[in-house]
Parts: sequence; structure tokens; C-alpha cells
Amino acid sequence: MDTYRSIISKRDTRSFSAQPVPEDVLHRILQSARMAGSAKNAQPIRLVALRDSARKAELAACGQFTPHVVSAPLVVALVLVPELGVVGAPFSIFRGPFDAGRAAQNMMLTAWEAGIASCPASMHDAECAGQVLRLPEGHTVANLVAFGYPAGHDANAGTRARMPLEEFVYWEEWDKKTP
Amino acid sequence: MDTYRSIISKRDTRSFSAQPVPEDVLHRILQSARMAGSAKNAQPIRLVALRDSARKAELAACGQFTPHVVSAPLVVALVLVPELGVVGAPFSIFRGPFDAGRAAQNMMLTAWEAGIASCPASMHDAECAGQVLRLPEGHTVANLVAFGYPAGHDANAGTRARMPLEEFVYWEEWDKKTP
Repeated sequence: MDTYRSIISKRDTRSFSAQPVPEDVLHRILQSARMAGSAKNAQPIRLVALRDSARKAELAACGQFTPHVVSAPLVVALVLVPELGVVGAPFSIFRGPFDAGRAAQNMMLTAWEAGIASCPASMHDAECAGQVLRLPEGHTVANLVAFGYPAGHDANAGTRARMPLEEFVYWEEWDKKTP
Repeated sequence: MDTYRSIISKRDTRSFSAQPVPEDVLHRILQSARMAGSAKNAQPIRLVALRDSARKAELAACGQFTPHVVSAPLVVALVLVPELGVVGAPFSIFRGPFDAGRAAQNMMLTAWEAGIASCPASMHDAECAGQVLRLPEGHTVANLVAFGYPAGHDANAGTRARMPLEEFVYWEEWDKKTP
């Protein structure tokens, strides 16, 4: 699938079949995160890939709106390494999560091209998530991404409305609606 | 270009020719950000697209490592709307920037497929950036992305090393190196 087509057709999906993610697709998903750029190439992220049901259930209990984390055959946690951009100067609170978002989107698009749906999940109790994953002091789960083949025939067809482009984009400064 | 090929070949590039980004590609870049998913479909981001040289120079002065923001024919600022996920509960500091990273990566991949390089830039002085863009109270620039055709014949060929996959990915828990 060409890149732009993947990007505009991709929908976050929370309903998965039990069919596992094939090993070759899993490899491409992980490589896609690895190759994502990061500020100063600091590579502030590590992944923890999960397929064990008990571990997924433990992790799901650390967030809200996480039933799809339990049912997904593959869950990937994006972990922020603290000295590489999470804490410090005010601007840097953006940096690690922004780079995590870049890596997550890469993974989700590669999966989507292979017919595999996905949806992120926030860990509302970050300490809980850190304990489940046995993270070292200061390391934090930025987000999970759940992956799986969509359940049902029309799961891909579900759309969630986006605001019109004219409201989404300003030109040169805030609220200026024409170039 | 197929999606995975775009993703693994994409390199952040800070050196651009003066050739403008064509209108049709610009449109696809902006649509790519608009269609990015966000937590609860909150759509916490707005874009400000900049092509005016003076404005780009003003904005570049709000960050470090920003000469590419001045030379890029197109700069897009990703603005976080405060009530939609920037501030509040501790976990939500991740949410807006994470969603901004997803939208930014979509834009950069669409550009890359069209032969256009890109690189983010942090705004180290967020207040300065807010003033240049005339942002309302509480709105924040998460990041800029600079776009342009790569300067020189081998600009696309430049690679920055990534850590090996075996160091980047753990399985089921931190530091467990095999599935």
C-alpha cells in the first residue's frame, strides 16, 4: 500500500481477533519503531513486546479504557529512558513523548499495511505499569500500542470524524485562515 | 513508495534547497496530520503552516539548533490546545505530545514519499514561540517540523546509526532479551 494511502486510511481499532501477528510482520513493526528519528538521535525509547496473556492483563489493570490490551495478541510498551529526554528543562517534557509518538505511528502504519489494526492505550497509573514491566527507577511507560487483526467484517470501515481541514490549519499565525 | 519502505528509509534532514513544496504535496502533508489518531479522538492539535521568511526567522530564534527552520521552504508548527490533553493529571503530560508525534510522523512520511525531506525542531523558549505565532493563553508549540527538498545529491543517503534491534526491544519485561 502506498504511504499516503496507508496514512489517511488508518483508523485506531480496539476490537481484535485472536489470530496472532505473524513473525515477519512483528519484525517489521519493531524495526519501524527502531528507525524512527528522535531529537539529536538520542533514541530515548525502548520497547517491551508482550504476548503473554497474564502479563497483558496485569498491564491493562494499570490504565482505563484498556480491554483491547487484554484481547490484543500483541502489545508493545514504549518506555522512556529518563536521562534521554523525559525530565529536565520544561521543553523536554515534550521531547520523549513526541519521539514515542513518532515511533508508535511508524509501528501502526507498518501493521496497517499488513492488514493489522492497532490502538494506543494510556497508562493512567504509571507506577503500576513500571512494576508490571520491572522497569528501572525513573523509566516510564509513555504509552502502549495494542495490535491485532480486526474482529468482524467491517472493523476497518469504522471512522471517527475529524474536524475540517479549514479549522485544523492556520497560516502564518493563529486564527489566520487563508495562506 | 510502499509504507514500510518509506518508514525504514526516512532520515531526518536539516539541509534544504529553496525549491518550494508543491501545493498538492502541501495539501497531502496537512491532511496526513489531520487524519492521525488521538486519545479519545480529542484532536488536541492544531497546525500553523509557515512560508513567510521573516516569520520563520522569528520562530527559529525561539529555539536552538534551528538554522534549518530558516532555510526550509515550509515549516509547520504543531500547537497543543490546553484543555485537550496537555496539562492536568500526571499521565496527560504524555498525551498531547504523543499525539503530536503521531501527526508529525504522518506528515514527514507523506513528504518523504514525495521526495521531500524534513526534520523536527524543539522550541526551547515556548513563550517566545507562542508570541511569534500569536497563540492564545495556555496554547503551546509542541514542536515544529521543517520541510524541503534535500540540498545536494547525497542528502538522502546520510544515515544516523540506530542501536541494534536486540538492545532496543525487550520481551515481556525489562531486560529480558528473548521472547
